Amino acid sequence: MMNRLDSVANEKIKSAVKIAASSKARKETGLFFLEGLRLCRDSALSGTAVRYAFFTDRAYERFTQDAALICSKAREAYLVSEAVADKLSLTQTSQGFFCICEKEKSEPLSSLDSEGKYIALENIQDPSNLGAICRTAEALGIKGAILCGCCDRYSPKSQRAAMGSLLRLPVFETDDLPREIEALKKRGMKVYATSPDSSARKITEAPMDGGVVCVIGNEGNGVSESVFALCERVTIPMQGNAESLNASMAAAITMWEMMR
Amino acid sequence: MMNRLDSVANEKIKSAVKIAASSKARKETGLFFLEGLRLCRDSALSGTAVRYAFFTDRAYERFTQDAALICSKAREAYLVSEAVADKLSLTQTSQGFFCICEKEKSEPLSSLDSEGKYIALENIQDPSNLGAICRTAEALGIKGAILCGCCDRYSPKSQRAAMGSLLRLPVFETDDLPREIEALKKRGMKVYATSPDSSARKITEAPMDGGVVCVIGNEGNGVSESVFALCERVTIPMQGNAESLNASMAAAITMWEMMR
Repeated sequence: MMNRLDSVANEKIKSAVKIAASSKARKETGLFFLEGLRLCRDSALSGTAVRYAFFTDRAYERFTQDAALICSKAREAYLVSEAVADKLSLTQTSQGFFCICEKEKSEPLSSLDSEGKYIALENIQDPSNLGAICRTAEALGIKGAILCGCCDRYSPKSQRAAMGSLLRLPVFETDDLPREIEALKKRGMKVYATSPDSSARKITEAPMDGGVVCVIGNEGNGVSESVFALCERVTIPMQGNAESLNASMAAAITMWEMMR
Repeated sequence: MMNRLDSVANEKIKSAVKIAASSKARKETGLFFLEGLRLCRDSALSGTAVRYAFFTDRAYERFTQDAALICSKAREAYLVSEAVADKLSLTQTSQGFFCICEKEKSEPLSSLDSEGKYIALENIQDPSNLGAICRTAEALGIKGAILCGCCDRYSPKSQRAAMGSLLRLPVFETDDLPREIEALKKRGMKVYATSPDSSARKITEAPMDGGVVCVIGNEGNGVSESVFALCERVTIPMQGNAESLNASMAAAITMWEMMR
């Protein structure tokens, strides 16, 4: 028999709402919020530590097997009223599945495989871009993402755009990307920085054998000067009047060329 | 001396708000709404017929040259109050530039260059995807987009995501994509349909010389069976647990391979 939480005034529910809404609350608690059958199931399957799982009665009845799987991984699981689900949900049509999970520590960059292909994201600020890039990275077989100065990868928007990939793809966080690039180069990796500058080397002509990192920069300003100073610039040749590709499209083509 | 429209109750302003908000109003009037310095300037530069241009005094003073360019192309131009700008604006921080433009007729598919590279979008429903794909198409040098059953390319969201590309890229609309594909094949074009099915031909192995059309399908359901029946299926090889690439990422990689 599962426990019930039917009041929106319950402390666990109020805390979950805060964790969904605020990066600060996620930082303070070390927890993050997931919504929807798919993401909650992905969290259970990926080995993410699930602190609390919440289901509406309808969700539990309709998707009993999935709910049971999530329960088996969750430290605590509760049935909740529709009113609680409305309070928790960030979508217009809630599926009635919610989890509060524990953030994972960033992996140390020293554990990165110096023969592998990685994407580095510098100051990506749009959570939909961050999520979509990581989803594409996983789909194409990129080994991991190095993040510096990006928006919160644990925000509901990032997690939703990633469709579960952020729960599985190895992520390395750093606040000093130039220092890490120097270390990766010493380990024999090629490090390229993408640029819209047409005088940069065409990405089709850049060697992609062995360990490679490609840096994608901020949506508006591109890669920082201090990173450019350490990397060979590569570019996706463009035509027409479009000033540039958006960051996630440039990242998709870049990763495709790395893995092609 | 420019005319002024300072009242939010003015009929032109009320009509502009409707055109911004509703696909039905855009259909009935044949007009669409653009917001922001860049899109309004792009409309003037691209030869789009500008019916009305609206500027706040601040916008006009700060960007006089751009405003004068837009005025020179607009049939009517007005200075508006900040209250009117707040009423018109769909963004949190309005730049004070607005245009009401005339939709362009779809180009007839018979005018398509049978030696060129084109993207076909079937039932793309997310305006951000539609806009981002067309932006990428223009940047990569794709000659035009064939649209069937897609969301409104004239919605403010589509136009914003396209960053002006939808004002320049040739667009061909059809409500019978299978019939058009048959006609294009008769003209000697290769027509490929993208699929997540790993048994499809790898996109890297599909000949891309001469005239080529690649079809990208709906975000959830992919390309329709009736289109698949007429096309060779091509796929972007995937790894990892991600079930698929999102439609705009798949389109970016597909167009890149067409132009590479």
